[in-house]
Amino acid sequence: MRGMKGLVYETSVLDADEGIRFRGYSIPECQQLLPKAPGGAEPLPEGLFWLLVTGQVPTEEQVNWLSKEWAKRAALPSHVVTMLDNFPTNLHPMSQFSSAITALNSESSFARAYSEGVNKATYWEFVYEDSMDLIAKLPCVAAKIYRNLYREGSSIGAIDSSLDWSHNFTNMLGYSDATFTELMRLYLTIHSDHEGGNVSAHTSHLVGSALSDPYLSFSAAMNGLAGPLHGLANQVCMDANVKVNVCKYSENSVQNIRNTFLILNCVVPGYGHAVLRRTDPRYTCQQEFAFKHLPDDPMFKLVHQLYKIVPNVLLEQGKAKNPWPNVDAHSGVLLQYYGMTEMNYYTVLFGVSRALGVLAQLIWSRALGFPLERPKSMSTDGLMNLVGANKSG
Amino acid sequence: MRGMKGLVYETSVLDADEGIRFRGYSIPECQQLLPKAPGGAEPLPEGLFWLLVTGQVPTEEQVNWLSKEWAKRAALPSHVVTMLDNFPTNLHPMSQFSSAITALNSESSFARAYSEGVNKATYWEFVYEDSMDLIAKLPCVAAKIYRNLYREGSSIGAIDSSLDWSHNFTNMLGYSDATFTELMRLYLTIHSDHEGGNVSAHTSHLVGSALSDPYLSFSAAMNGLAGPLHGLANQVCMDANVKVNVCKYSENSVQNIRNTFLILNCVVPGYGHAVLRRTDPRYTCQQEFAFKHLPDDPMFKLVHQLYKIVPNVLLEQGKAKNPWPNVDAHSGVLLQYYGMTEMNYYTVLFGVSRALGVLAQLIWSRALGFPLERPKSMSTDGLMNLVGANKSG
Repeated sequence: MRGMKGLVYETSVLDADEGIRFRGYSIPECQQLLPKAPGGAEPLPEGLFWLLVTGQVPTEEQVNWLSKEWAKRAALPSHVVTMLDNFPTNLHPMSQFSSAITALNSESSFARAYSEGVNKATYWEFVYEDSMDLIAKLPCVAAKIYRNLYREGSSIGAIDSSLDWSHNFTNMLGYSDATFTELMRLYLTIHSDHEGGNVSAHTSHLVGSALSDPYLSFSAAMNGLAGPLHGLANQVCMDANVKVNVCKYSENSVQNIRNTFLILNCVVPGYGHAVLRRTDPRYTCQQEFAFKHLPDDPMFKLVHQLYKIVPNVLLEQGKAKNPWPNVDAHSGVLLQYYGMTEMNYYTVLFGVSRALGVLAQLIWSRALGFPLERPKSMSTDGLMNLVGANKSG
Repeated sequence: MRGMKGLVYETSVLDADEGIRFRGYSIPECQQLLPKAPGGAEPLPEGLFWLLVTGQVPTEEQVNWLSKEWAKRAALPSHVVTMLDNFPTNLHPMSQFSSAITALNSESSFARAYSEGVNKATYWEFVYEDSMDLIAKLPCVAAKIYRNLYREGSSIGAIDSSLDWSHNFTNMLGYSDATFTELMRLYLTIHSDHEGGNVSAHTSHLVGSALSDPYLSFSAAMNGLAGPLHGLANQVCMDANVKVNVCKYSENSVQNIRNTFLILNCVVPGYGHAVLRRTDPRYTCQQEFAFKHLPDDPMFKLVHQLYKIVPNVLLEQGKAKNPWPNVDAHSGVLLQYYGMTEMNYYTVLFGVSRALGVLAQLIWSRALGFPLERPKSMSTDGLMNLVGANKSG
């Protein structure tokens, strides 16, 4: 299905050269136009969600309302707390995350309304309610997983309704550096949506088209995001950076790194993309953040060196249609700078952000009455017959 | 994407008139050719899985090997037992089922092998191992959910390695009627696969294409199966049958039932299908089972009356492209006859069976090196521009 036009997806469109546009706005435009936290410089993810759902850039007041609304809806049902607390440490954080989201579907207004036979024209209202609830609860689920796995199960504390969604999230994770909270606002904004054809967005669309509720649709999407060819790439990339670093290339010698990749002749994690044909703007804005806040961090310097070298090596090898870095090549280095070194966890952050995009679209899919997604499959034999190949050979 | 040729799927192909063919064999052919249990008349699902994976009808010996292999691999890790035992009764059985399958991914050989960097050419071997393990464990997960919700948490007992997969399943569910076990063999065979475009098969294919492991891929598929437009339909159908029955139409008067549907002018659950244009052969073989084992059951008589009436009413209304019944119109009545009246649970049985089809295909998808599924999405604006509509108005 590569490149096949098969989905209507309103919230964002991906251009191979320009990168993602959210409701027509590029990432630099969103950084400029969307409301910021008091004293902050990065856009609030609340504003991005408002933009994705309504198509309008929100006011500060509207964004504040959203922060308060999510704070109000954040509490987890006790059975989800219990299951998270009982999970063993060898269960991947993404599996814990997805499993908990499926179990949250006990709270679904849509599932309840559907079983009571509400009119189809009102489906979107219940999908909206579920989406708001789910987005509100995700940071609590994610923070509990983090504390259980990496902070001896310490308490995530209470939601503060005077703070924004990202600030509450970093508090619950146990990070008090204000710049980390700024990073999280940027991170949660830029990972939210990447049109409809990527595996997580497509999965939520597909599962939602059978009228499964937003919890089930989003959890299925997370199982896709957990794939190494999709969201798990950010874990894999940072792991590769660390390995390059550890393998005595810490002197950052251009020649050494270059030789390594030429010798390995391997896929370079974080470089290339199914659609993009230029440097991902999600990479660029993270690079700007790094230049501003951590210009002297050795790992950032390594990542930046790689950026100068890898595209040329890949071009020389003639292997990649797109030798440029994507979002995953940069996100890990920022997180580790602030002390979040647990790479297994990075995809969970991606997942929290992705909810904003795919749930905004899910509201619209039900409002527009999109039908069941049901393409036709063919067996290899059937395909051969179709093109007449079985006759000639 | 309705009808769009977009997937290669080897294990089965659906013909709008004939219904499903598993590796070229129709359901009546499978009933005839596949090995049976000693003294049994229905095909063993083990044989169907063998057929789907290899393309060959297995011998009795091969099927016995598979039964023993699944018995050997059936044990659940303790954390999954704990989570199932702690789930609240208001969490839908399908959510419990899917959530537990995601948590089973702690056992994935594929995820472990991938993270250790095994060669791409061997991926399918690990997907095969995971699929065998998962299929073996599913009846235990499903039976635990059943006992917890409807049998006061009584023990599912131990696996008997001398019994086939379905027999062990019915034992664990707590049913000792040999005809119910026969029904289960038929049920688990016919619900297994329905080509690649249905939501559950497509979801497992899509999530698997990001190289998520079989546990995550299958769990995502289950979230799709839980949708009322897909697998949850069997619950909805039986509920409708019961309602028709309760509403004083128990005299089964043709005229009364006919009037009811004409007056209600509603979608009739269990009638119609996205692809099929004739009576679903999965309906027909269940009807034959009923004529043989429960010809005088009042609810079966009602279902059979509906079959005589509903297609004509739908044709008169001119509403349905396909006025014929599908698999879901009949499955519930058979289950309730043997005492399984818990309609909320029916989709879980469907899910256990669906594993056979979608995991057989997943093994092949990795063996054939299928790429990431990544269609292109368009916004409505973009589509309008594409067809030139925005210029003219």
